Amino acid sequence: MKIDLNSDLGESFGTWKTGNDAELIPLITSANIACGFHAGDPSVMLETVRTAREAGISIGAHPGFHDIEGFGRRNIAVSPDTVYAETLYQLGALSAAAKAAGMTLQHVKPHGALYNMAAKDIRLADAVCRAVRDFDPDLIMLASGSGELYRSAVKLGLRAAAEVFADRGYSDDGTLVPRGMPGAMIHDPLAASERVVRMIREHKVTSAAGKEIEIRADSVCVHGDNEKALEFVRALRTALISEGIEIVPLNQIV
Amino acid sequence: MKIDLNSDLGESFGTWKTGNDAELIPLITSANIACGFHAGDPSVMLETVRTAREAGISIGAHPGFHDIEGFGRRNIAVSPDTVYAETLYQLGALSAAAKAAGMTLQHVKPHGALYNMAAKDIRLADAVCRAVRDFDPDLIMLASGSGELYRSAVKLGLRAAAEVFADRGYSDDGTLVPRGMPGAMIHDPLAASERVVRMIREHKVTSAAGKEIEIRADSVCVHGDNEKALEFVRALRTALISEGIEIVPLNQIV
Amino acid sequence: MKIDLNSDLGESFGTWKTGNDAELIPLITSANIACGFHAGDPSVMLETVRTAREAGISIGAHPGFHDIEGFGRRNIAVSPDTVYAETLYQLGALSAAAKAAGMTLQHVKPHGALYNMAAKDIRLADAVCRAVRDFDPDLIMLASGSGELYRSAVKLGLRAAAEVFADRGYSDDGTLVPRGMPGAMIHDPLAASERVVRMIREHKVTSAAGKEIEIRADSVCVHGDNEKALEFVRALRTALISEGIEIVPLNQIV
Amino acid sequence: MKIDLNSDLGESFGTWKTGNDAELIPLITSANIACGFHAGDPSVMLETVRTAREAGISIGAHPGFHDIEGFGRRNIAVSPDTVYAETLYQLGALSAAAKAAGMTLQHVKPHGALYNMAAKDIRLADAVCRAVRDFDPDLIMLASGSGELYRSAVKLGLRAAAEVFADRGYSDDGTLVPRGMPGAMIHDPLAASERVVRMIREHKVTSAAGKEIEIRADSVCVHGDNEKALEFVRALRTALISEGIEIVPLNQIV
Repeated sequence: MKIDLNSDLGESFGTWKTGNDAELIPLITSANIACGFHAGDPSVMLETVRTAREAGISIGAHPGFHDIEGFGRRNIAVSPDTVYAETLYQLGALSAAAKAAGMTLQHVKPHGALYNMAAKDIRLADAVCRAVRDFDPDLIMLASGSGELYRSAVKLGLRAAAEVFADRGYSDDGTLVPRGMPGAMIHDPLAASERVVRMIREHKVTSAAGKEIEIRADSVCVHGDNEKALEFVRALRTALISEGIEIVPLNQIV
Repeated sequence: MKIDLNSDLGESFGTWKTGNDAELIPLITSANIACGFHAGDPSVMLETVRTAREAGISIGAHPGFHDIEGFGRRNIAVSPDTVYAETLYQLGALSAAAKAAGMTLQHVKPHGALYNMAAKDIRLADAVCRAVRDFDPDLIMLASGSGELYRSAVKLGLRAAAEVFADRGYSDDGTLVPRGMPGAMIHDPLAASERVVRMIREHKVTSAAGKEIEIRADSVCVHGDNEKALEFVRALRTALISEGIEIVPLNQIV
Repeated sequence: MKIDLNSDLGESFGTWKTGNDAELIPLITSANIACGFHAGDPSVMLETVRTAREAGISIGAHPGFHDIEGFGRRNIAVSPDTVYAETLYQLGALSAAAKAAGMTLQHVKPHGALYNMAAKDIRLADAVCRAVRDFDPDLIMLASGSGELYRSAVKLGLRAAAEVFADRGYSDDGTLVPRGMPGAMIHDPLAASERVVRMIREHKVTSAAGKEIEIRADSVCVHGDNEKALEFVRALRTALISEGIEIVPLNQIV
Repeated sequence: MKIDLNSDLGESFGTWKTGNDAELIPLITSANIACGFHAGDPSVMLETVRTAREAGISIGAHPGFHDIEGFGRRNIAVSPDTVYAETLYQLGALSAAAKAAGMTLQHVKPHGALYNMAAKDIRLADAVCRAVRDFDPDLIMLASGSGELYRSAVKLGLRAAAEVFADRGYSDDGTLVPRGMPGAMIHDPLAASERVVRMIREHKVTSAAGKEIEIRADSVCVHGDNEKALEFVRALRTALISEGIEIVPLNQIV
């Protein structure tokens, strides 16, 4: 019984600071590091890689759309060829920072609108996964187990890891209940932790509509935006450990 | 007797096209490829790498300041730490495109204002060369033999290659006569070719002031901006070949 | 019988040049000038405004999405509030260049994906038109007569001008036949000119499916990308003049 | 006896928030609003203008170099023509936001490296001031009284306002003691307030070297980066009011 905890790091940009990277890093095992397209910049990337190395956690690329002003959260009608080229570019850029710090990349997790669009559009999912394979076939693709990114990774022979969300409700088809809809958020850390433990143990979760659905959980996505979010992660860690579930990086799982 | 011919390629950006890459590529042996900071974009980079591979020429990174609007030609007061991080970033990004195309990078030649500033500022030169060394110590640093970039590369244990300019006049200290000054440009292709042959053969050139100076020539920087420039390159090639000088990529020279 | 001829100008960016502005300007009456978001930059804008002033043609703003790499042609899921703020920003920026050159703006024509998305989405159309109204209610909105931009402009009390395309086929609902579909392009300058004359005279055009449809034509959108395009415009001008149709700027029409 | 208090506002960008605008606004009389080139974006600009209007304070443009990653603090070798065009662009963009909110601009204060470089380079100072004059000759130029920007504004017939710094030491030539040098900072709010009162009353300040120098003070530049900075401003206001000095916007002073 093992699980990875992943979180988005290195989202500062220029003089603008954001995130609680220093407090979050000791709580997680895999960091998704922004690559300068939707957040981060070359200096922030290098600093984040170094901080991760010192903490002994694994790192991965968090490529996104080239949309600094929109933080990569806006859908953009980008062609698969552009997605392929932009993913390669970002993988290479972060990989160089990692190499300079004596590290190697463990995984790739697309960000924001790219993650969401690629989860539904097989052409974009294939473009991302081909870029990963052509850059380094040993990289793990981290994505929702119910979307096209995961399926494309498996199809192309990449190792694929499925991430789940502790604080989100699921629809009957295994996708997240959209924010703003009833059942979208799980606010109680205890209830959230119990759900995650069951996902890991039994590969099942109860959907917002009350149905038992199958789910694969290799990693839990957590956030460190504020003290409450950090408390949520700490509660989750405590629950996992007390249940005998080992918290390890992705490359010890898939 | 060997010489490399290098030129800047892949300088288109988005829908804007520039350069005569298709016509220039058969004439050169090493391409300096823009990395998206002053010119180029992920798609242009990938296309340029593929074109170079098909033509069988060597490729290198052409990192510059993050200044698309100024084409990397404007001096920017960037710290050495930023130059280090930005150079790593660009090396990695282009390297990923190369890897996806089944190629590896041969060399690095900084662009424009970064090239000029680093030639005079040892802190910037060291920042660039440390990034190259930390990313891949087998890369060749291509720069003017009279500047700090070349010296820093040698100091840090990198292979260093000295480039000369066929169409430019030299000052007594081995630096280029600034554009607009008397003796800055050599317009006659024949005279230019003879100068280059002498640089290769005798390691000497006559400065604008008439002095014999020492110069090292591993590579000649050429341009393909227009038909006249292409003619210049063709004349140079003809002269070199007729003198028995072999035109080969940098990695067969240094 | 009057018609305006409009074209997109000032689409160079930094050191990248594009378009045949110098040759196109004498052929048109209204210039849509890029505002730095999808093309153009502050220097190009100023130069374009000055060139238009010398030629005695009218100028308008050509605001687009903030997407230099995609030339504003990619759909981006931007909120109406952002569209409102970005349109204001671009109108103000170009207006300052105009003011410094002793000119005032005549019209606004959104660009590319913003034009296309706003033509179909009333929230985006209203956002653009509210920005125009709040900045200067005397500005003319130039857009397809069959879309939401035109309707929103009328609704908000702006002067609205309808543009038609000489070289494009129309569907039965008055929208353009998408490129790549049968009947999308009218290649024969003579046939195109006859269609335009009929649009102006009879307010009718024959759709690709052969149906007679109503169409309003205050302005014809023309291009100057290459010599063939320029020839097309010259043929159109000749046809219009020989039919006694006066070619005048928009502000003499609506 | 009157003084203006000015501060830089609207420096957030995209999803990145910075500054204590809400707490600072009630303490100042003139806001320098970033124009999207070094900080701010169209939505932030509009929001900042609206907030200033509600608080009843005056607004001005805070144009800077086009350098988001460097926050406009890095010297860039930009030509006077580019500075002219970029200043016009930014003035127009902010002016449109102001107009849409029912406000007009009161002043212009260049930002960061543009401010510093123009203070020493008359060609850049003239470029900025010509842009201001050509856009709106009623705008007040706010700058250090000892630099070229102030002199150029006077020369070109603009109203010029001199700003002083409460928390900074002065050299004998009226320029600021560079940060990091002895005497650069005045940390004690009481001492700082007394200095400012004397600048206003007697047009004099004691330099770091102990010399009495002439100084003109139309406005004091204050900051709101943190609670301590806000306390400093509150102490300054209290001192000014108790001395019978009226705190009013620039347009009631020059």
